[in-house]
Amino acid sequence: MSASGPIFLPKGFKFSAIAAGLKASGKPDLALILAEPRTTAAALFTKNRIVAAPVVVGRASLTKSRGHVRAVIVNSGNANCATGPDGTRVCRMVCAETARRLSVKPWEVFPSSTGIIGVPFPAVKITSRLQLLFTGAAASVEHLRQFANAILTTDTRPKLSSVPLRSGSGAVTGVAKGSGMIHPQLATMLVYVLTDIVATPAELRRALKNACDESFNVISVDGDTSTNDTVLLLASGVSQIQLRKVRKEFEKALLDVCQSLAEQIVADGEGVQHVIRLRVEQAKNRTEALQLARAISHSLLVKTAWTGADPNWGRILAAVGRSGVPVDPKRISILIGEQTVCHGGVAARFDERRAHEELLKPECRVTVRLARGKSALEFLTTDLTPEYVRINADYST
Amino acid sequence: MSASGPIFLPKGFKFSAIAAGLKASGKPDLALILAEPRTTAAALFTKNRIVAAPVVVGRASLTKSRGHVRAVIVNSGNANCATGPDGTRVCRMVCAETARRLSVKPWEVFPSSTGIIGVPFPAVKITSRLQLLFTGAAASVEHLRQFANAILTTDTRPKLSSVPLRSGSGAVTGVAKGSGMIHPQLATMLVYVLTDIVATPAELRRALKNACDESFNVISVDGDTSTNDTVLLLASGVSQIQLRKVRKEFEKALLDVCQSLAEQIVADGEGVQHVIRLRVEQAKNRTEALQLARAISHSLLVKTAWTGADPNWGRILAAVGRSGVPVDPKRISILIGEQTVCHGGVAARFDERRAHEELLKPECRVTVRLARGKSALEFLTTDLTPEYVRINADYST
Repeated sequence: MSASGPIFLPKGFKFSAIAAGLKASGKPDLALILAEPRTTAAALFTKNRIVAAPVVVGRASLTKSRGHVRAVIVNSGNANCATGPDGTRVCRMVCAETARRLSVKPWEVFPSSTGIIGVPFPAVKITSRLQLLFTGAAASVEHLRQFANAILTTDTRPKLSSVPLRSGSGAVTGVAKGSGMIHPQLATMLVYVLTDIVATPAELRRALKNACDESFNVISVDGDTSTNDTVLLLASGVSQIQLRKVRKEFEKALLDVCQSLAEQIVADGEGVQHVIRLRVEQAKNRTEALQLARAISHSLLVKTAWTGADPNWGRILAAVGRSGVPVDPKRISILIGEQTVCHGGVAARFDERRAHEELLKPECRVTVRLARGKSALEFLTTDLTPEYVRINADYST
Repeated sequence: MSASGPIFLPKGFKFSAIAAGLKASGKPDLALILAEPRTTAAALFTKNRIVAAPVVVGRASLTKSRGHVRAVIVNSGNANCATGPDGTRVCRMVCAETARRLSVKPWEVFPSSTGIIGVPFPAVKITSRLQLLFTGAAASVEHLRQFANAILTTDTRPKLSSVPLRSGSGAVTGVAKGSGMIHPQLATMLVYVLTDIVATPAELRRALKNACDESFNVISVDGDTSTNDTVLLLASGVSQIQLRKVRKEFEKALLDVCQSLAEQIVADGEGVQHVIRLRVEQAKNRTEALQLARAISHSLLVKTAWTGADPNWGRILAAVGRSGVPVDPKRISILIGEQTVCHGGVAARFDERRAHEELLKPECRVTVRLARGKSALEFLTTDLTPEYVRINADYST
């Protein structure tokens, strides 16, 4: 669950990051990835009906370029969301200015923004610093870390994950940001996964969708789906390894990277003290398992019981009951760690101190068994602390 | 929004309350209503699939008695939920013991419980104190207040509301408890509404359903639907006023009482600093208005913005976007108090200080307009404070 471990640099990418004055704090807030010609791309976006300008522009650009990307320009400090036609116009301007410096088409530049919603987007702060941003670009792990740092908002630490491909000198390396408004649906937060494999946009898209279903789509911090969620996968092709020849290894590496980033996002959730690895077992299918996991992980009473490391399984049972899944209360079991605390819908004999100690761990396990079928799902979620409330009750964060 | 105002005592009811040792605090936790022969009844229950023993027993008893009730026995301190067949058995035993003392049938006694889930129900603490409970019963406002006090859990104050019927000497008077696990669906919390009108169970049921739709079904504190929610309406008939002759006045009085109790419940929500009167306007129909009001009022980011009196309408817009209602972002307006803060999906020019001051009020107004139709709804909800988290993170509350 940490960003430690070695970072392998996929070939064909350069990184840069500077402070452009979008964050009041003066911290780095503008970041760039430069990609080799012929770099292919696939992306997944938020399912929120309110989408930010860069999501609108990025989606259209990927279509127009038939899944090719030469640069990614990201800012933190302003989401460029609910900013109307002006927001879209200035987002396009930023892409065009970036493209001009590279002598590529504007739709080969992929934009992302994260930060406050509904505040006019100060595009000139970005365009006036593009020269500086380009000058600093380099292909090094240190520059990648600077990129990871500049895209953060309320995150307390950068999020990276990297897996080398044994079948050659390739790698899959991901960077993410996100700690609040985390309840992704199909895509999440800002995530950039880079590889130097050779792949078509269609191959990337299929692989990305599968990996997201098992990573960013099974986490929740606060149940709020962002307007800017984006996961972008880029393949430079420089390693000359063909995806179709190492499909299994590549898909495994991609899943590992996505799961590691998802775990890092949850662990760095706003105010989080405990990460809960919630398993739903014996569901009829994945859909109802997910519905149930979300109902439990969005229950304020369950989340606050976890805050107090309280093995109050009755609150979990009540959340199961209102989930909309037609469960039979008499067949439900709940486990905290290895211990069954509720069996057949009623209290089991259990060692309360041991259950309390399990819940005191930074990462603990809770399992709900439905006796309805064979589908199982693991969902990562968090407790809810007074600190979460303080962070988000601070005037206009 | 207060429990003040005169309380009119409907004829035909006696009340009693004592401490039976179910609450660790030693506070009153056992309460009784005695009703005249021929008292008719209607009830609505929680939509949670996990239901407590008294909900199972109470529902069956009302069917068996064809909507007649002679006594209501309520305890706080233990919900008698997730207690299995034993829980149902001891609930029936409490009803039978109560019935024996009145020489009525067990199914003419209506049970309710509220408190912790999943802890064996100490029925003997109740049956051994029934004599004392019966001895204290009397038809006075003071005794009614004692009843209102004994059914509380984390509530900080009793909740009463009363409206006299002009058309004679009758009255409609309600008592409620509830401050957490408040997201009623069709019924809510524990609510007892008493009247001395003459009515059939079917007449009562229709009136109760309508009144609940406009009161307990449009409030939310924390989005958690309880396993024990019950609204019971009793009509003693002692006033000899026929419901069908004063239908409009009666329905208005019932709605006033239910709305007042609903407001008192929200205002006394756990840790609540601000009550938000959220209006959804220009929806296509009531269903989507309700869906949208719930999405907004369950958003942790919206609730915490309200905690900080922060006019951060972007969070409201993001919640609208993920509500599942197919809104057109470009047509959405948001008002704080009288001021439009978002128009056509983008920031309006507004006086931020005035918006902040509106949100600082103990009760403030937020309006969302969809430009989709003519349906409107008013929903009562709350902010989310560190105090809420502290209350619910306290080990096994």
